[in-house]
Amino acid sequence: TVSSAYDRLMEDGVLEGHVGRGTFVAERALRVTEPADPTAPLRWADLFAGATPPPRARYPETGDAPVIPFHRNVPDPALFPVEAFRVALDEVMREAGSELLGYAPAEGYPGFTDFVVDHVRAARGVSVAPDEVLVVNGSQQALDLIGRAFLRPGDTVAVEDPTYTGALEILRGFEARVVTIATDAGGIRLDDAERVFARERPRFLYTMPTYQNPTGRSLADERREGLVRLAARYEVPLVEDDFDGELGYEPHTPRPLKALSGSRGVIYIGTPSKMLFPGLRIGWVLADPAVVERLGRMKQVADLSSSQLLQAAFARFAADGELTRHRARVRTAYAARLERLLAALERHLPEGSTWTRPRGGMSLMVTLPEGVSAEAVLRETAPEGVLFAPGSWFSPGNGARHLRLCFGSVADEALEPGVEILARAAKAVRARARRPRGDAEAALPSV
Amino acid sequence: TVSSAYDRLMEDGVLEGHVGRGTFVAERALRVTEPADPTAPLRWADLFAGATPPPRARYPETGDAPVIPFHRNVPDPALFPVEAFRVALDEVMREAGSELLGYAPAEGYPGFTDFVVDHVRAARGVSVAPDEVLVVNGSQQALDLIGRAFLRPGDTVAVEDPTYTGALEILRGFEARVVTIATDAGGIRLDDAERVFARERPRFLYTMPTYQNPTGRSLADERREGLVRLAARYEVPLVEDDFDGELGYEPHTPRPLKALSGSRGVIYIGTPSKMLFPGLRIGWVLADPAVVERLGRMKQVADLSSSQLLQAAFARFAADGELTRHRARVRTAYAARLERLLAALERHLPEGSTWTRPRGGMSLMVTLPEGVSAEAVLRETAPEGVLFAPGSWFSPGNGARHLRLCFGSVADEALEPGVEILARAAKAVRARARRPRGDAEAALPSV
Repeated sequence: TVSSAYDRLMEDGVLEGHVGRGTFVAERALRVTEPADPTAPLRWADLFAGATPPPRARYPETGDAPVIPFHRNVPDPALFPVEAFRVALDEVMREAGSELLGYAPAEGYPGFTDFVVDHVRAARGVSVAPDEVLVVNGSQQALDLIGRAFLRPGDTVAVEDPTYTGALEILRGFEARVVTIATDAGGIRLDDAERVFARERPRFLYTMPTYQNPTGRSLADERREGLVRLAARYEVPLVEDDFDGELGYEPHTPRPLKALSGSRGVIYIGTPSKMLFPGLRIGWVLADPAVVERLGRMKQVADLSSSQLLQAAFARFAADGELTRHRARVRTAYAARLERLLAALERHLPEGSTWTRPRGGMSLMVTLPEGVSAEAVLRETAPEGVLFAPGSWFSPGNGARHLRLCFGSVADEALEPGVEILARAAKAVRARARRPRGDAEAALPSV
Repeated sequence: TVSSAYDRLMEDGVLEGHVGRGTFVAERALRVTEPADPTAPLRWADLFAGATPPPRARYPETGDAPVIPFHRNVPDPALFPVEAFRVALDEVMREAGSELLGYAPAEGYPGFTDFVVDHVRAARGVSVAPDEVLVVNGSQQALDLIGRAFLRPGDTVAVEDPTYTGALEILRGFEARVVTIATDAGGIRLDDAERVFARERPRFLYTMPTYQNPTGRSLADERREGLVRLAARYEVPLVEDDFDGELGYEPHTPRPLKALSGSRGVIYIGTPSKMLFPGLRIGWVLADPAVVERLGRMKQVADLSSSQLLQAAFARFAADGELTRHRARVRTAYAARLERLLAALERHLPEGSTWTRPRGGMSLMVTLPEGVSAEAVLRETAPEGVLFAPGSWFSPGNGARHLRLCFGSVADEALEPGVEILARAAKAVRARARRPRGDAEAALPSV
């Protein structure tokens, strides 16, 4: 009978009954019994797993104006030690080419691991053994591997507010819940860190204690041991991103958290991308051997290993004394640029603006006067070639009045003109903001 | 009262009642109220998310014997064109060093993307536009990004049986459910593919249609269009790993699936790791622009970009004609090695053994006589220096009598001695297997 045929199809899962709605062909059965038209293109959007990654943040069009790149947190290509690096590369190719063009151990080229051990001791005061070092493709891969090792969807991660946009993107990719810790001129506030650790039990804290991105501020010396102790007490691993810790412009550089006693819970990330150049795609993770082993396994599954040719060339470049020489050269250059930028801000920015005064790194953060939106200012400066990242990118749901100025790759002579354009735009936006709302003029599109 | 205090603590979640067991302090409350001893090391194993990755498969110790590396599916370092590559690297450093040492676009160095478009057309008959190309860190990263884009834990993925161990590891990392499709001398059996596609609706099929690892077999020409049509019909993306498609030893090389009509659902992976050398850590994905865009976003989050210096050097090396020259040289060398290996197998392996006869690539698969375990044979050959991968590594729950022999990096004069050792061990294991079980001798440990 029809009824028993229905029952049979229900049992087989081909039909589904919904009380009060009737009987339907089950969705799964539909998929199984109706193959697609083989000439139609695949519907990729339906085949991807998870949410669509957000599009990259975009800057407004600059038109034909020459760009003054306050938006790029990168070193100046004009300062790259190209010739010295070419020589190092050529030497290692001549000496060990056929070895270097083969597969590398996932943990890194042994000669490079040894270099990292020596380098972080000399440059950052961090003592580690070779089995506490993992070589990765730049600090971005370090963060990605740490996410894989520690995060499940929905897990909580703590970050300082504001923080690196790229870290927020990685965490979003892992579907982590991000909680922020308040900062002040001395970096992370320990009272807020304790509150967050106790209440949220994050899987880790991602922090840039030295010359952080975007503010250029450092965690105060007297808070460093406290943060390490707090993290140990609440069993929260500290992920210390020391991406520009070697770019200090004063004799005193803060000690990395990883150099302090009781720092076994610190997972340290280092990179030559800012102090030298980013094209090597090399970075290093320093951590407990158990963590290095875990991340190394994940690295091996993710991409087998990083290029040992570039690792060997970098180690040779450093052994020749070129890294030390280069670092001294760029510190002088960037410190001079920072001074010039600070002087220009002082001269031009409208009253009510404030800014950070970093002691290293390549970025600082400006706070615009009350009611002046950084994104509105960016829309004004972009057609004149001045680009910068608005604070909202670094601070989820915050930072509307903030903006980051990177000075690493802005030519000396462009610093003051760039700040003048910025200041003019800020004043224009402020003038508009002060006009009473709702009048006829305000309703016109701002062209 | 005590009772109302209890009620209060229950409401706050500090206490939990379990009927018939009494009242307990809730686990979560315990974590919150009792911070750890800050001097104790972190318990990393408790902090890691997900299951422990399995340890790498290990080969038995070889002792002092010189190793005959049938286990390494790698090209011969003695054949690496080190000098020609050194020259190419030096040229691009001199010409464009400061550009090449900067950050690259996530999709790849534009000059390299153009090279890939030309190269895959000339070498593999695949026509793609630049927006269908993504540059990655070797084919392993391609697979990893594809897993991220398409897989959620528990999703089903189809593979051919046997398949590449590294792919199984990646899929395990994504907690995918792996289903296998049966193969024969002509590769994937289409009837089994249809059965699996219809019943399991895998998120994708991972396949190596040309000179596959481990067997060296290729998907028969007359099955190729059928597989592409089947996949389109069931909306199953085909992930085609063409890692050694350029290492064919006969005039006729099978056309990649990606070169066939209706192949918009094919995600193609290419790499110079086998035809040239693996140290570049470069690979390319060819796919629909929607897939390239998605994978490119994930690549950017995972590690920003690959080194453009190595991409530029590789493109220069190829433009100088060196890639074509090198490929011709290694094809001749590996084809001769394959002939020599096949002859040695014929001469020495015990009766009842069979093996595949690849027409390209650097590996073949031996099937040992009934009852002879490849792992037992490996334990015999290892002390004499002969290493190979047992078939069980490529075939979940299968392949006990199979073993893979890679001949790419075994010196010509070591091939026959290696096979002799293998044959002797196989005979010894067979002799033991034939003895009636349970006798006194069989109970002794095999030393």
